[in-house]
Amino acid sequence: MKTFYWKLKTGFLILGIPLILSACSGSKSSMSEPIVLKEQGSFAVGGIVKESPGTFDPIEHGAFNPSDQRTEGQTLHGDHAFVFYQKPENARKLPLVFWHGYGQSMKTWQTTPDGREGFQSIFLRKDFPVYLIDQPRRGKAGRSTESTTITASTDDQLWFGIFRLGLGTEFYSGVQFSKDPKALDQFFRQITPDTGPLNINVNIEAVSELFDKIGSGVLVTHSHSGGQGWLAALKNNNIKAIVSYEPGSNFVFPESEVPEAMPYLGGELSARGVPMAEFKRLTEIPIIIYYGDYIPEKPVQNPGKEQWRVALAMARKWRDVVNEYGGDVTLVPLPEIGLEGNTHFPMSDLNNKEVAGLMYNWLKEKGLTKK
Amino acid sequence: MKTFYWKLKTGFLILGIPLILSACSGSKSSMSEPIVLKEQGSFAVGGIVKESPGTFDPIEHGAFNPSDQRTEGQTLHGDHAFVFYQKPENARKLPLVFWHGYGQSMKTWQTTPDGREGFQSIFLRKDFPVYLIDQPRRGKAGRSTESTTITASTDDQLWFGIFRLGLGTEFYSGVQFSKDPKALDQFFRQITPDTGPLNINVNIEAVSELFDKIGSGVLVTHSHSGGQGWLAALKNNNIKAIVSYEPGSNFVFPESEVPEAMPYLGGELSARGVPMAEFKRLTEIPIIIYYGDYIPEKPVQNPGKEQWRVALAMARKWRDVVNEYGGDVTLVPLPEIGLEGNTHFPMSDLNNKEVAGLMYNWLKEKGLTKK
Repeated sequence: MKTFYWKLKTGFLILGIPLILSACSGSKSSMSEPIVLKEQGSFAVGGIVKESPGTFDPIEHGAFNPSDQRTEGQTLHGDHAFVFYQKPENARKLPLVFWHGYGQSMKTWQTTPDGREGFQSIFLRKDFPVYLIDQPRRGKAGRSTESTTITASTDDQLWFGIFRLGLGTEFYSGVQFSKDPKALDQFFRQITPDTGPLNINVNIEAVSELFDKIGSGVLVTHSHSGGQGWLAALKNNNIKAIVSYEPGSNFVFPESEVPEAMPYLGGELSARGVPMAEFKRLTEIPIIIYYGDYIPEKPVQNPGKEQWRVALAMARKWRDVVNEYGGDVTLVPLPEIGLEGNTHFPMSDLNNKEVAGLMYNWLKEKGLTKK
Repeated sequence: MKTFYWKLKTGFLILGIPLILSACSGSKSSMSEPIVLKEQGSFAVGGIVKESPGTFDPIEHGAFNPSDQRTEGQTLHGDHAFVFYQKPENARKLPLVFWHGYGQSMKTWQTTPDGREGFQSIFLRKDFPVYLIDQPRRGKAGRSTESTTITASTDDQLWFGIFRLGLGTEFYSGVQFSKDPKALDQFFRQITPDTGPLNINVNIEAVSELFDKIGSGVLVTHSHSGGQGWLAALKNNNIKAIVSYEPGSNFVFPESEVPEAMPYLGGELSARGVPMAEFKRLTEIPIIIYYGDYIPEKPVQNPGKEQWRVALAMARKWRDVVNEYGGDVTLVPLPEIGLEGNTHFPMSDLNNKEVAGLMYNWLKEKGLTKK
């Protein structure tokens, strides 16, 4: 197992937990201390303009009449991402750009289900400019250029399993999730549907345009945005590092070295190939990947765990290939460094301050925390 | 026309603009001054839990498989509102709760289309705790208990007219909206669709539950939330005042005094009736209503203006009836006090600091700014 954290310094491994704790108990991390913002705001970025041929008559068809709407000669601005940003006083140079996962929005990085501070405020208190994304066709970036149907299907218990809180309705033993029923209620209400067909190219384009706009920064991904994050980094050199929590798909290999698809109970995880010249970009930036707990090494009769068994296995292969070509990928299964009970959402788990401390220490080690 | 602002003091009318300007140039309102937050966060409030009968087998059906999803025995948490709040240091007692209009989200109150500060930051700088709402089935409150289809219809020019920026694609002369094409691009991208059937009872219930949670506060509404705001105030005594920008529908009268529906080019505006005992609640709180510019007194061949002609006429009737029963409703068409060129979005127009100054002065006059 040692290969999982070969990039970590031995001293860090031994002293890791105390260091993390001290990083989190400093004078600026207490909830009673104020957050001092130089600036905050929101904007749309990326997207396209859809046009319908013809002419719009604003007199004849300028009233709102859902049963007789005319589209001729009109436009629709859609497929953008929505961004909310906050810049603290005395900020570090590189902002953190947080990108949510499947079925989620920027809420992932805000207040935790049990009401504590999420990464948005935790990293503001650590003096980082923080950008939160709603990806295209999700949340406040709801305007899509393609139609869709949203089916209000009951599926909370499916996600309870896939997000590794537990099985069915039973929490896993030792899970870092509050047993207050209100916390689970809040967690389920974080889910928000796609308002158009899910299209990762649309998402990647918008995130790349965000980095065109803001310049150099660190991309922080979660789950479904993990693979999209690798692809965004291929497009945009302003992405100077990636922190990825539980990437689940779209691992990008040189086209001659794409591993075989990995079957698991309920599905199959395949990888992507790109020309070596493109792939090389991923060797130029430091990358760290974290996975939580309850991820088995061998196949088990639990689909909620199975998906992550192969994701972790694929991530290991990917780390090895990127590093073989000169890259700097670190893979950290949290239980291996003493953090146990983490779900698929380490950023909002009960120990999220420790998880944030790990991320902060890595950023510092890589020279990404300069002011 | 004097009746429109009979509640305003003569001194204020004469000195209004200088007072507003001075209210906006104080030491805490400059963008270069920091915003000091005691706390910020987000949560879901209200909503229901939908349940499907049967049993969920997390082993058999616990993998994500869109073509074979089982709903049996599962739940869906939906129909909540999503709230993002910020509390400044040394805050005033009563928070401001901002509720967006039709096709919009809390973005309405954030950065303006041309990139300046919106009411979120303006009122934080004036020391108010600020709560922003995405109403149920909109934005980050996307999870609905009922299905829907979102049609990606081109309709920007329709809204350009209804939101009174201009006619077709031509801005009105003197309009308080940036002519930088990027501003209009951002404005159109604020639109975000319903992710479930629009149901004002669901919305009102969630907003009422928000006031149950936070206690006393001032509700600030816009357009479609205007009428919903009156209905929310009937349900919840924690709503201590209402500021309403361009309320468009659902004016609530005593059931014996419901005015006739008002026809306009492209539609008809009807009012609601409630028992007198309920209606009386609206006489117990101070209310101010603002309308912008380009609203004609008489019918015109312009549907984008017509809708607001009858809304303003209905608002006048409503003010008179509420005040007749002892209420305290002030109605301010902005052009009448010297603010010209305002669209349907005074809170983000080029003169939004003056618009905010008016609101602040009114809150102060009504004793709602105490610390």
